[in-house]
Amino acid sequence: MTETTYPRGRTALLFVDPYNDFLSEGGKVYPRIKPIADEVGLLDNLRKLNGAVRAAGIQVVIVPHRRWEPGDYESWDHQNPSQQSIMKRHSFARGEWGGEWHPDFAPKPDDLIAQEHWGQSGFANTDLDMLLKQKGTTHVIVVGLLANTCIESTARYAMELGYHVTLVRDATAAFTHEMMHAAHELNGPAFAHAIHTTTEVIAALPVASYAKETVK
Amino acid sequence: MTETTYPRGRTALLFVDPYNDFLSEGGKVYPRIKPIADEVGLLDNLRKLNGAVRAAGIQVVIVPHRRWEPGDYESWDHQNPSQQSIMKRHSFARGEWGGEWHPDFAPKPDDLIAQEHWGQSGFANTDLDMLLKQKGTTHVIVVGLLANTCIESTARYAMELGYHVTLVRDATAAFTHEMMHAAHELNGPAFAHAIHTTTEVIAALPVASYAKETVK
Amino acid sequence: MTETTYPRGRTALLFVDPYNDFLSEGGKVYPRIKPIADEVGLLDNLRKLNGAVRAAGIQVVIVPHRRWEPGDYESWDHQNPSQQSIMKRHSFARGEWGGEWHPDFAPKPDDLIAQEHWGQSGFANTDLDMLLKQKGTTHVIVVGLLANTCIESTARYAMELGYHVTLVRDATAAFTHEMMHAAHELNGPAFAHAIHTTTEVIAALPVASYAKETVK
Amino acid sequence: MTETTYPRGRTALLFVDPYNDFLSEGGKVYPRIKPIADEVGLLDNLRKLNGAVRAAGIQVVIVPHRRWEPGDYESWDHQNPSQQSIMKRHSFARGEWGGEWHPDFAPKPDDLIAQEHWGQSGFANTDLDMLLKQKGTTHVIVVGLLANTCIESTARYAMELGYHVTLVRDATAAFTHEMMHAAHELNGPAFAHAIHTTTEVIAALPVASYAKETVK
Repeated sequence: MTETTYPRGRTALLFVDPYNDFLSEGGKVYPRIKPIADEVGLLDNLRKLNGAVRAAGIQVVIVPHRRWEPGDYESWDHQNPSQQSIMKRHSFARGEWGGEWHPDFAPKPDDLIAQEHWGQSGFANTDLDMLLKQKGTTHVIVVGLLANTCIESTARYAMELGYHVTLVRDATAAFTHEMMHAAHELNGPAFAHAIHTTTEVIAALPVASYAKETVK
Repeated sequence: MTETTYPRGRTALLFVDPYNDFLSEGGKVYPRIKPIADEVGLLDNLRKLNGAVRAAGIQVVIVPHRRWEPGDYESWDHQNPSQQSIMKRHSFARGEWGGEWHPDFAPKPDDLIAQEHWGQSGFANTDLDMLLKQKGTTHVIVVGLLANTCIESTARYAMELGYHVTLVRDATAAFTHEMMHAAHELNGPAFAHAIHTTTEVIAALPVASYAKETVK
Repeated sequence: MTETTYPRGRTALLFVDPYNDFLSEGGKVYPRIKPIADEVGLLDNLRKLNGAVRAAGIQVVIVPHRRWEPGDYESWDHQNPSQQSIMKRHSFARGEWGGEWHPDFAPKPDDLIAQEHWGQSGFANTDLDMLLKQKGTTHVIVVGLLANTCIESTARYAMELGYHVTLVRDATAAFTHEMMHAAHELNGPAFAHAIHTTTEVIAALPVASYAKETVK
Repeated sequence: MTETTYPRGRTALLFVDPYNDFLSEGGKVYPRIKPIADEVGLLDNLRKLNGAVRAAGIQVVIVPHRRWEPGDYESWDHQNPSQQSIMKRHSFARGEWGGEWHPDFAPKPDDLIAQEHWGQSGFANTDLDMLLKQKGTTHVIVVGLLANTCIESTARYAMELGYHVTLVRDATAAFTHEMMHAAHELNGPAFAHAIHTTTEVIAALPVASYAKETVK
């Protein structure tokens, strides 16, 4: 599928949940993803992608999970199991180190930051779709965590919303190998327009960095 | 239309934009609404409603406009006229008094606070609909500002989403009489299920304050 | 505001409710719009626009109201007043002449037809947003009926969704002058990016008819 | 998890894609699901559930995939792999037997039928959420096909929308065992509020069949 091309000024990298709790040694969830993260080279690939898309003039959009605050989910009629777990562990707690951006992936001045999502999809109950439309976006590349939860739901929503959707199999991770397999071999092939490696995505990016305005 | 009833545990008061900039002497937008606010008794009616719905065990949901921050809207491909005006005036600026809650209408412990909306509808690009569903809400009473912009868009959305929608003609205001007329005599009657006065709404509330749990 | 430009391959004309019941002599709603339709030259302007946008290679999207069928709305917990009226009058009845396209505005082969909408907004509970995204649309021109109900709600939604929105003041109609005034002088200026006449829109269209593919 | 209860008048059974092509001998997709369908007893379980929820006064909602028509998807900028497959195979073709309801699961008079969905989620680009709200629905039970595509996307959306979501592990099927495993052991436990067997769901239904009105 290396024939995918990413139109400059129309493509966005959606970087889901780049929190210390997910991506840094000492993070609350990091131990659970570390085996697969190490195996696929997650941190290195995210760094490469992050550099390459910025060099190519691709819009970066941070797609953050709700940072836990005291009281969160408590008054809801029905929390799901992930939300119950967050209530116990205080994952991505607001005001704590775990809920801060991993230092290599903190937003830069022209990045967009979507509203925090409560569930799995970065589009659900947030302004992500509108922000993308305000940049004329037609193609999204979805990276970050976890492959079979937030990445998959964000990507499923992106497809339903009419975007061209790319998954990057080594720019994400999950708790187990079979979850990675489910995301990229069982489910992704049914809804994603492209499933690439980091190297393949970088090779398909526009060559130089012209601003969107000059090519409109 | 006084036969409307508001099921306890299924009704929410949506209080749109209770900011000092809108509702307090010295607020940036207040001078433009003051003539009509005074005429309809806006502040008094909001206080009465606020008290009555809480006494009746009705859920209060704060539905806030995006608090202006430096950079807001600037990178968007197309701002609308209201957004251009906010960019100039810094309405509801985050961290300033104008963007703080009017002291009489600040959220209380069990209130819900929806994500801030960028445009006119409190439902667009926010978590408002999900929060209402997590409380089993079927009926919404929409009050606050402005009658023909944020209130009307929030109410139009609520109708499309399948809620029973009540407008309260003297618990809102606008810049001109003809805007009030448009909201309540021309447009509201086409989409709202009820258009009441504050007195009528209060009369239709459930009598006592039982918690939702006891009547489920 | 004649400086608006409509990017070819990125602009769509949303034609709301081109039914005989609205636009043809003998239609159920036609008598109520006829005075204003005649005054603004509605039918002629729609014909001119329809021809001009097709010549300019602009995508036409039909945005149809739910055609009434027996049983419609009956089982709903709360119908709004417009829906109650439709239940009585059987407006745009499926299988009847009133629910057929006005012959001058029937869809042509490359037009898109959105799913029918139950309320006022052509975007609510339909596939309209997705269809537009599948064509890379960033700009919409909203015409048809009624100015202060379906056109206004469709346009308010389009703005919230991140589109550039144009209203055309003489390519729509309403039951009364003050409803037209509300749509174009009171409410539209708060949310629409442009409010033009038919002549102004046509002057702002791309000059020749190249297909989208050739300019991508 | 057998402590789940389904409030009468607030629960809906979402029956996804009950087409001959999926569920009947001779259907286009049936051969691919038959091994697992037979193994879990899919048809029998769907019949039991269908009977039990109706007896319990639970709302049934048919959630149908877009029936293929000539031209479908062709003008879109980017079809996903499932849509490309449908374009080749003409799955659920409108006007053909494969696109008709399986005779045991055809809608009955009080059932709701949502608009057809183009992708995987029955909520995306359709009126499903609104129809559920018009019945005061808070709990959904999602059954039908396929476990890891349409069922999973519909259920993920339902969770994001604020509903209580139940998956039924033997009232669905998929092409492979590992797809079933992914749906019910890997992904479902992260977002669904309950994952039950048909027998467990039936045991948890309200005992008798009173109409919603009498218990409101």
